[in-house]
Amino acid sequence: MTTDTFPKVATRTATIDGATVTINGIAKGSGMIAPDMATMLAFVATDAKLPAAVLQPLLRRAVDRSFNAITVDGDTSTSDTLLLCATGQGPRHAAVQQPGDRRLADFRAKLEDLLVDLACQVVRDGEGASKFVTVTVTGAASDAAARRIGLAIANSPLVKTAIAGEDANWGRIVMAVGKAGEKADRDRLRIAMGGITIAENGQRRPDYDEAPVAAHMKGREIDIAVDVGVGRGRARVWTCDLTHGYIDINADYRS
Amino acid sequence: MTTDTFPKVATRTATIDGATVTINGIAKGSGMIAPDMATMLAFVATDAKLPAAVLQPLLRRAVDRSFNAITVDGDTSTSDTLLLCATGQGPRHAAVQQPGDRRLADFRAKLEDLLVDLACQVVRDGEGASKFVTVTVTGAASDAAARRIGLAIANSPLVKTAIAGEDANWGRIVMAVGKAGEKADRDRLRIAMGGITIAENGQRRPDYDEAPVAAHMKGREIDIAVDVGVGRGRARVWTCDLTHGYIDINADYRS
Repeated sequence: MTTDTFPKVATRTATIDGATVTINGIAKGSGMIAPDMATMLAFVATDAKLPAAVLQPLLRRAVDRSFNAITVDGDTSTSDTLLLCATGQGPRHAAVQQPGDRRLADFRAKLEDLLVDLACQVVRDGEGASKFVTVTVTGAASDAAARRIGLAIANSPLVKTAIAGEDANWGRIVMAVGKAGEKADRDRLRIAMGGITIAENGQRRPDYDEAPVAAHMKGREIDIAVDVGVGRGRARVWTCDLTHGYIDINADYRS
Repeated sequence: MTTDTFPKVATRTATIDGATVTINGIAKGSGMIAPDMATMLAFVATDAKLPAAVLQPLLRRAVDRSFNAITVDGDTSTSDTLLLCATGQGPRHAAVQQPGDRRLADFRAKLEDLLVDLACQVVRDGEGASKFVTVTVTGAASDAAARRIGLAIANSPLVKTAIAGEDANWGRIVMAVGKAGEKADRDRLRIAMGGITIAENGQRRPDYDEAPVAAHMKGREIDIAVDVGVGRGRARVWTCDLTHGYIDINADYRS
């Protein structure tokens, strides 16, 4: 099953050793990461002349921070695919052989940027999604721990339904941090929504003004930032809310 | 928040060394395991005369197979509590000092039975639940692996919405087995619903008749059995479906 409601494309240009190359990407899938045995497919092509040995590590790192950092409902596909190919047909540039070559800095950044763009388009088209949610976790024991906390928040049905209901329910975020099972310091926990700190040092700010946060929750772009107060690990994940539309799509589907 | 819609009570009698003792239990919580900082509370009392050193291991084992084997939406509470106390005011019986004492066999079985009963009442009252689902996993590498597979199935929004939609979607069950990350043999996988084998040896039975399974899915008690074909591990978990009612309750709630 796929229920794509809009085409997902992204393009970037990058400079390698003075030559300007192009990166184009397309993706399908809105049931992703709820694909019901369908597939999320993404194809990325560049005219840069880069060998697979260079592209593969760049791609792995960029996918880790983009497609592997999105979730719709926590369910997964059997055959999600992301393919990057380089035609080498663009403007001539130096033959770069090492993925860590500093001449690839711009290409690396633009590739990641493009993949984040595409991945976020998939989330925006998530089944029944009415809001796009960015979860930023800082202060974790490691980047991996930060990601697990971020995904626990992003996959929590209680957090997702609160967002659907436009409720700045920071208690549910605390719950999700807790169930992630990673180190977090209750007494240093900080939670912000829409850039406004709601809770810090583990408790609601005495001067917390709900009005601007309530206004933020009514928008379509929701921003949640959590600092768990134990280290320097950080991660960003993206998700959508959980709405009646999701139930409609998935309960009415027939296998 | 709690939205209990019916009282949850259970009682059993057990024989210890010829004396008949009583075990009574009550529980609250329907947002459990979606408790939004509320609590699932369960209190169990018996008139048997058993020391804490005997009761604790019996309780741990029974809780593991009952309250720790239920899920509504995978979200957890900060303060779920289950308390067992023995008054010692019942009929006289031998002073049993070891949890493994064979004279406790009946008490142990009845305690587990009572806790399963109570835990399943909590699930039946799950937020928005329209169906009660029993997931039995066999053939796993270990009992713990079987439980993780069972919970992956029971917590999958795609499986839960399929059940709400009365669709015997075995593909979504295969997906959930896959995402559990435990050993499973694709070519020996067997899936049954309502006691009727839908797929075996990794594929749909050629003679599969959908009609009786479709009839089963229309009922309120759904039975899913999965054998993953690699070992002797087994587990049972209980859950409910994911419906519009869940969204109503949790999206409309205000913190």
